Amino acid sequence: MGIEAFKIQHDLVAWLTVAGDKIRQRMTEQIQISTKSGRNDLVTNRDKEIEQFYVRQIRQNYPQAKIFGEEGFGDIVNDLSGLIFFVDPIDGTMNFVKQKQNFATMIGVYLDGEPIVGAILDVMGEQLIVGGPETGVTLNGRPLAPLADRPLADGLIGVNGGMFASNENQLQQLGRASSGVRITGSAGIEFIQLLTGQQIGYVSKLSPWDYAAGQAIGVALGIETHLSSGEQPTLMSRETIVTGLPDFWRYFKQLQS
Amino acid sequence: MGIEAFKIQHDLVAWLTVAGDKIRQRMTEQIQISTKSGRNDLVTNRDKEIEQFYVRQIRQNYPQAKIFGEEGFGDIVNDLSGLIFFVDPIDGTMNFVKQKQNFATMIGVYLDGEPIVGAILDVMGEQLIVGGPETGVTLNGRPLAPLADRPLADGLIGVNGGMFASNENQLQQLGRASSGVRITGSAGIEFIQLLTGQQIGYVSKLSPWDYAAGQAIGVALGIETHLSSGEQPTLMSRETIVTGLPDFWRYFKQLQS
Repeated sequence: MGIEAFKIQHDLVAWLTVAGDKIRQRMTEQIQISTKSGRNDLVTNRDKEIEQFYVRQIRQNYPQAKIFGEEGFGDIVNDLSGLIFFVDPIDGTMNFVKQKQNFATMIGVYLDGEPIVGAILDVMGEQLIVGGPETGVTLNGRPLAPLADRPLADGLIGVNGGMFASNENQLQQLGRASSGVRITGSAGIEFIQLLTGQQIGYVSKLSPWDYAAGQAIGVALGIETHLSSGEQPTLMSRETIVTGLPDFWRYFKQLQS
Repeated sequence: MGIEAFKIQHDLVAWLTVAGDKIRQRMTEQIQISTKSGRNDLVTNRDKEIEQFYVRQIRQNYPQAKIFGEEGFGDIVNDLSGLIFFVDPIDGTMNFVKQKQNFATMIGVYLDGEPIVGAILDVMGEQLIVGGPETGVTLNGRPLAPLADRPLADGLIGVNGGMFASNENQLQQLGRASSGVRITGSAGIEFIQLLTGQQIGYVSKLSPWDYAAGQAIGVALGIETHLSSGEQPTLMSRETIVTGLPDFWRYFKQLQS
């Protein structure tokens, strides 16, 4: 493919591990919090510092790459051509602020829109999942086997709270047909639970940096990621993302008709 | 009070710590799963073994006490007179089975219906919170100060998924007025988050062993625990329990009128 997936993966592991150390070391410091699109859409100085750290690493090591970052320190990305790093410095900022746990830092890397490798770190749980179609997937260094499909009735699902309350996409019926519904408040944590077999599906409205890493890792484990319409996620804007095992997706699709 | 709260607390710490070790050591073994009231109400051989372990300890150390346990190895308890141990060997059995994390083991102790001491262990997270009105509260041995009241808009709340979906007790309005809604699937984990200031309220349908420990610890930290009607929980049957900081309770009560 002209680029080295294992080299990128190696770099992601190093950067996320260092970023995790930086965040944990400073958990007791006062943080500066601002709101973005609404009172519950938060950003802190820590989000910004970590994104700047990632941007410096990427610029230095992959000067040809474009950077699509949540906090705007990257580039304005208008198409998926070339090498793109999707960067989410702190995913689940509300949890970071209120719970001081249950948040992630993550990066997904794509070449011409095709997944190369993704990495997600549960910062306080110190669980690092990394991989892609070429490299396979590891959790804290240990290889993970592809996931066997399981019936919806046999697994927990993650949902977006607002969508679940308003029964968007029939999520309440989906929940009743499953083992139960969970709301964690972090796409990164949801993806780790999905990729490690703790949950079998997840539905939420997500921005590209929220699902780029998880989608790239998922390809290697048998996790499908779709728009609710069944089309491929665009990696360009905020959309309803449905991700999970094949049976979860079949059931979801059936409920929409 | 005729009984020694510090002695009971000391014993709870020892029993829960040993129980946590037992559960973690056997996490890779195959477990036997049965259903109780419905397909998503699970019990495993591990729940039963741990309850039997607790029952042996209580019988030996507090022969005068009654035991109100989830899995039925205790006594038939018809009133709140005397010393009662409320025992939940594994709280969040679905999470135990599917996620292998996000579950708790807990015991609450009451004398003539008054809270003496409670203890909750996040088994995989190894967070042990213990205390009561006389002994104060510690988390892994470190003292916790009483919680300052905070406005509902400033905190996350935990809810029961089914109640949230059907908007029982106006939980959706409550959620929109808060910082966000979370569903974890374990009352014990919800109580730890509440008692450590990570969340400010929690509403669910709970059995006595689900909230006895959390209510006892909460008294010492400024957490109020009510029935949705405003009456005191009976500690005798499954009821809608509303627990949280004073402002959370005020807002909840207002929404019911």
